[in-house]
Amino acid sequence: MTVLDGVYYQDEARIKRRFKKSIKMVCSTKTLKRKLPIIQWLPTYSFGILIQDFIAGITVGLTAIPQGIAYAIIAGLSPEYGLYSGIMGGLVYVFFGSCKDVTVGPTAIMAAMVGKYVRGYSAEFAVLAAFLAGIVELLMGVFNFGFLVEFISAPVISGFTTAAALQIASSQLKSLFGLDGSSGTFFAESAVSFVQNIKTATLWDPILGFGTILVLVILKRVGHGCSLSGTTSQKIRWYISLSRNAVVVIIGMLAAFIIKQILDDEPVILIGDISGGLPVPKLPPFSAVVGNETYNFYDMLSSFGPQSLVLPLVAILEAVAIAKAFAGGLQVDANQEMIALGLCNIASSFVSSMPTTGSFTKTALNHASGVQTPAGGIFNCLLIILSLTTLTSTFYYIPKASLAGLIITAMLSMIDYKMFGRLWTHSKRELFVLIATVIICLGVGLEYGIMTGVFFDAAIILYGKARPTLDFYTMKASKDLIVVPLNYNFSYCAAEHVRNILLKAALNASQDSFIIIDGTNLLNIDTTVASNLMSVSQNIDKRACPVLFLNFDEPLKKMFIAINPLFAEKFISTVRISDVVDVYLKNI
Amino acid sequence: MTVLDGVYYQDEARIKRRFKKSIKMVCSTKTLKRKLPIIQWLPTYSFGILIQDFIAGITVGLTAIPQGIAYAIIAGLSPEYGLYSGIMGGLVYVFFGSCKDVTVGPTAIMAAMVGKYVRGYSAEFAVLAAFLAGIVELLMGVFNFGFLVEFISAPVISGFTTAAALQIASSQLKSLFGLDGSSGTFFAESAVSFVQNIKTATLWDPILGFGTILVLVILKRVGHGCSLSGTTSQKIRWYISLSRNAVVVIIGMLAAFIIKQILDDEPVILIGDISGGLPVPKLPPFSAVVGNETYNFYDMLSSFGPQSLVLPLVAILEAVAIAKAFAGGLQVDANQEMIALGLCNIASSFVSSMPTTGSFTKTALNHASGVQTPAGGIFNCLLIILSLTTLTSTFYYIPKASLAGLIITAMLSMIDYKMFGRLWTHSKRELFVLIATVIICLGVGLEYGIMTGVFFDAAIILYGKARPTLDFYTMKASKDLIVVPLNYNFSYCAAEHVRNILLKAALNASQDSFIIIDGTNLLNIDTTVASNLMSVSQNIDKRACPVLFLNFDEPLKKMFIAINPLFAEKFISTVRISDVVDVYLKNI
Repeated sequence: MTVLDGVYYQDEARIKRRFKKSIKMVCSTKTLKRKLPIIQWLPTYSFGILIQDFIAGITVGLTAIPQGIAYAIIAGLSPEYGLYSGIMGGLVYVFFGSCKDVTVGPTAIMAAMVGKYVRGYSAEFAVLAAFLAGIVELLMGVFNFGFLVEFISAPVISGFTTAAALQIASSQLKSLFGLDGSSGTFFAESAVSFVQNIKTATLWDPILGFGTILVLVILKRVGHGCSLSGTTSQKIRWYISLSRNAVVVIIGMLAAFIIKQILDDEPVILIGDISGGLPVPKLPPFSAVVGNETYNFYDMLSSFGPQSLVLPLVAILEAVAIAKAFAGGLQVDANQEMIALGLCNIASSFVSSMPTTGSFTKTALNHASGVQTPAGGIFNCLLIILSLTTLTSTFYYIPKASLAGLIITAMLSMIDYKMFGRLWTHSKRELFVLIATVIICLGVGLEYGIMTGVFFDAAIILYGKARPTLDFYTMKASKDLIVVPLNYNFSYCAAEHVRNILLKAALNASQDSFIIIDGTNLLNIDTTVASNLMSVSQNIDKRACPVLFLNFDEPLKKMFIAINPLFAEKFISTVRISDVVDVYLKNI
Repeated sequence: MTVLDGVYYQDEARIKRRFKKSIKMVCSTKTLKRKLPIIQWLPTYSFGILIQDFIAGITVGLTAIPQGIAYAIIAGLSPEYGLYSGIMGGLVYVFFGSCKDVTVGPTAIMAAMVGKYVRGYSAEFAVLAAFLAGIVELLMGVFNFGFLVEFISAPVISGFTTAAALQIASSQLKSLFGLDGSSGTFFAESAVSFVQNIKTATLWDPILGFGTILVLVILKRVGHGCSLSGTTSQKIRWYISLSRNAVVVIIGMLAAFIIKQILDDEPVILIGDISGGLPVPKLPPFSAVVGNETYNFYDMLSSFGPQSLVLPLVAILEAVAIAKAFAGGLQVDANQEMIALGLCNIASSFVSSMPTTGSFTKTALNHASGVQTPAGGIFNCLLIILSLTTLTSTFYYIPKASLAGLIITAMLSMIDYKMFGRLWTHSKRELFVLIATVIICLGVGLEYGIMTGVFFDAAIILYGKARPTLDFYTMKASKDLIVVPLNYNFSYCAAEHVRNILLKAALNASQDSFIIIDGTNLLNIDTTVASNLMSVSQNIDKRACPVLFLNFDEPLKKMFIAINPLFAEKFISTVRISDVVDVYLKNI
């Protein structure tokens, strides 16, 4: 970044200043506080803050547990992996996180992105993905590469989110209706499997599933306009609304449990046995056995392909976007957030976690529950550990349809429906990028979709640079003047366009006229355009009429003359364009 | 291209007009003349023109034969392939070519690009590469995709050419010195092999090789200042200078022949047996056997990797650049050139040719020899056919060192040495791109080098777009105004930068001041920047001071309001910035 930036502005003094500055920065206590934000808030930590963090942490935990199980299912992992993934994020973020609200944990999108590898290969791939993502995030944070996410535009993010939501929601149709068959890795697969198996739908699964969705919608409404500062009834409504994810799963679980105990029947499909106990800490898996084949580290890496870069980028995008949304207009140190996220993922990969990142639902919940410091994450983590050690036998009774309802509701609320209409009205170009992203995400894969979107956006910018606004006008002076004004700056890709405009201008010229390339408002031009301008004006000189270069800056003029010294006499400086020919004729 | 272009300017009427125009174009005789340029010149063809084309064609052929053999050796093919490659280009170009001087045939760069596949797999890969390149070139021409080559800047072209020249020249060191060992596919390989085997150098090979180089340099000098219109002695000097490539090879060949006949000795390494006769016309090879393995079409395609797109792009680049250089300031129909080139390569692949393109040496020679129409190519082609049928036993005596000297001289003259110094003085940024291209071309491969260069150039443009010039200034009016002027246009990648500048401006604000986002000179902004602007100004509104939007165009204003209707009252239009607060306060 520094190199590019530096050479772009051709300002070496600035690079040196920056370098000195960065040396200084590494050594100051201010830097230590920035790199280890816990030092800032721990000294003033009090019992009052502890209570608030405790309440928020437990509230988040109540959602994190059913969500974790649901996301493990999305990734094709067994449910306990979802809980493992919730443990380390909170603990590590306490030390390195710079934003009190952010909650790092498994997310639906991360789960969907690794699902392909878990289903195609094995669970080890998800854990290795967490480790690799952590390393990439850490490196990007350390080397200030966070600016890369700035090249993912809002329409691409929206398209990606929409596609991920559709893909995840469609994969839950199987559980929602209690169908046979596969849940599918791609949208089309899930949809086809749904249609093929719709006849195998049970009675109670869809009732429970749609019931869950209905209750979630109602509970969300119940909390409208309520807050912690309201009356007691408002407070209760607010709290129930916040914990609605836990509420619906507990209701489903209790119903299944009671029916089992009383009628000894299982009318809905349950998630079944979950291995209890804490995960055994161990190195991330650098090899995996799939069927009869052993995959070494290199094989695993090449199976990931572009995913190994796209997944950490998406994780950073989610985490940084969330941090910004909850920073309340304060500056967010994106690089520090990436470092924190990287360390969270690396630590997580030692306890069999899938990739994690900032979770929007949990962060919003954390914020709404009045968290004061990142320490809230500790209580969230403790609750998950508690559930792993004591509650897994209870989780046996969680109905799959409840989780499916939960996931589908969350996913459908992630889609920004309004954006489609807004872009249709105001910017078809951006709508095109959005739709291309959605289509490639759904049809080829999430990582390819986001790459396609970024590519189209970049291509549009480059195309704009290649076809700058440029035209010529005719002016009567002592001779006919055909003036081609060059404004702002021209890059290599505009060379051909500039050439064509100049040739067009030459067609309008008679033997007696002059073509004036007016560089009065020209800021910069590169050698490709300069060479092209010179070769075409040499040709016009020979065949039609003289070409003169008006009011070019001294450095630009020198660059032209370095390419061809014969052009020195063609550069004219004068205030009035109409004088240019007289000045030129006087000079030669 | 049309879609992007259209949506970029949001001008649908224009798309429709273009569409109608293109329908019309397809049906006119003017189009037929454009697509089959032979129709333009054949009716006025005369005996006088025939003579001129004949002389030029034979002159070019005299160079084409030794060059073809040399380029086959560069590609790792047996020599006759180089001659096969010279046959169809000229014939097909007669019908479809739009530029009289252009000569299509094998080139050193094309040869170097397929060399890797010929050495790694088999000769079939070179022929299939010609076919595939032809198809890609044809499609790009038909669908007007020629603009893609505009994104290869002069420094990237220069870096690519430099690296190709160094790689090709280094691979000839083995033959120049008569060494044992491999000639190497990469620069480093060739250099290491040269150093390791330098002790095996013979006496006569380097003498002949360096002698060849010396004679070529002298013969080039001999022709300086001479032309067809000079005295008889000037004419002779001019012609010898033009045919210098043939001259040195014939001298070497004669010397080897005579020594063999008289002394029955072969003191220098000869190219040896060449299969005589014309190539058997057959389908391009869609499968190949390498060792014990059979490669089907798909395997061959995936062996090519990015090469399958980069090779045709480079071919187009060479051909179009040459056409432009010799069009003498006239417009070049780049798409027609691509169609012609594509057809040349497709036809060539049926006679066991490697990929071909416009050759700079041969085109320049053709031009200098006074060619009048593309028909000159027919005589060039006939001479090659004649040599294949009658002269291959003579070619046995061509010394490898003569060809090596020929190739090295040609390659070292391809490098634009001055460009390095010029860029060092005037544009370090472009120098960086050039050097990166050279390094990756030499170290990783020519196709990756050109891709790297294009990527860096694009990244620099995008980075410039992401960090537009933007600052704020303070102004005293009825209130303190902090004005952030937005000029020209802002794309998604600038969103973060705009946000940071606005936050910086807010730090300078007191409770009593106003922040004015001045859109008077703003041309365009996309939804990413707009949403970002709105979210940050909402935050500033809450925490610091009001933010107002001044003089935004109506369509832009509507786009903002579509995102958040609450912003309607923040848009103010007034001629004088100092009035903005009064107007605003009056409105609410």
